[in-house]
Amino acid sequence: MKKILDVNGEIASSNRSGFLKKRIRVINIMASPGAGKTSIIIELCRYLKSISVPVHVIEGDIASDIDSVKLEDMGVPVVQINTGGGCHIDANMLKAGAEILEPEEDSVLLIENVGNLVCPSAFDLGESDRLLIASVPEGDDKPYKYISIFESADTVVLNKTDLADYSGFDFAYFEKGVGAVNPSAVIYPVSCKTGEGLEPFLRKYIKGEVTG
Amino acid sequence: MKKILDVNGEIASSNRSGFLKKRIRVINIMASPGAGKTSIIIELCRYLKSISVPVHVIEGDIASDIDSVKLEDMGVPVVQINTGGGCHIDANMLKAGAEILEPEEDSVLLIENVGNLVCPSAFDLGESDRLLIASVPEGDDKPYKYISIFESADTVVLNKTDLADYSGFDFAYFEKGVGAVNPSAVIYPVSCKTGEGLEPFLRKYIKGEVTG
Repeated sequence: MKKILDVNGEIASSNRSGFLKKRIRVINIMASPGAGKTSIIIELCRYLKSISVPVHVIEGDIASDIDSVKLEDMGVPVVQINTGGGCHIDANMLKAGAEILEPEEDSVLLIENVGNLVCPSAFDLGESDRLLIASVPEGDDKPYKYISIFESADTVVLNKTDLADYSGFDFAYFEKGVGAVNPSAVIYPVSCKTGEGLEPFLRKYIKGEVTG
Repeated sequence: MKKILDVNGEIASSNRSGFLKKRIRVINIMASPGAGKTSIIIELCRYLKSISVPVHVIEGDIASDIDSVKLEDMGVPVVQINTGGGCHIDANMLKAGAEILEPEEDSVLLIENVGNLVCPSAFDLGESDRLLIASVPEGDDKPYKYISIFESADTVVLNKTDLADYSGFDFAYFEKGVGAVNPSAVIYPVSCKTGEGLEPFLRKYIKGEVTG
């Protein structure tokens, strides 16, 4: 395991310096199955297009092309990486995906990791930042249980806030859990269904760090 | 990886023959984070107690004792297995847990696997059967994406049906996906929140196979 991580780390470093040179922002998007990775990616693509920032997507979600078809319909260049049942994207997969997509300078590259709150956190890809998507129906106790992934995230989107009242989701308890393992993480509550919170999230998350 | 699976398989076989001798039904409960593993386990424990079948629980969900405290409060013997950030329970963890709990003849042993729709499917524990808990807010496309785990399940519980209308969940599409990878799997739609479907599920799933 240590050896696998060492090799992965070397490729990740090489990825990172390549992306830095071209000022490409690479976002590693992690979540459990059904939390809304694809919905958030679609919103990110829509927003980036609206401010004329080129965007590419590497789809790592396993064993179907359901998500990549949605993105192709939007005119976003997308590569589907088949992990062969694997539980995470690794640095070499990002390398291979980027070689196919050839993202230009000053663009954004989004990576949809495998739907999994455990394994992806251990693998550095050479990304610029990590975006973790949690969702209300998963429950407010997830930061207490899936510590590594909450610890490793730079930003947390809490999706499906439209279900908060119905689910009895305790936002303060969730926020406390995130804060305990990762005090610097910013949390954005959003609903991809109603649109609530999306524009503030997109403006702050993207505009704050990418020249648009 | 093959070697790990071989060693695991040997321990699983030994577990299985030990459990068979004592007519202990061992249920490997798998799901993504927040689908309702603990809620279903609580319902199973309540029902088994009501029909005087002894029940024990091995808690494999990572890095907290939130769930085991709930079960202890019900008077159910429970062991918390710390996977140390690992993404699945393996046969050796089941062995160790069973050695502590010492379940009696004609009892039921429930295993709450790590919340993960990828890795747990590859590890035979020596269980009697596999119960997969899906949930409505995860979306109706999960059987198409997480094929191995749907393939390996004997029974599928679809939890949170109370959110079906709200989420636009297409049950026929979900059922078709399960049927495509696993034609013999039985699907039980339930809601742990409203109680809908629980009694029929419990009666058929437990009474059909355990002498109560």
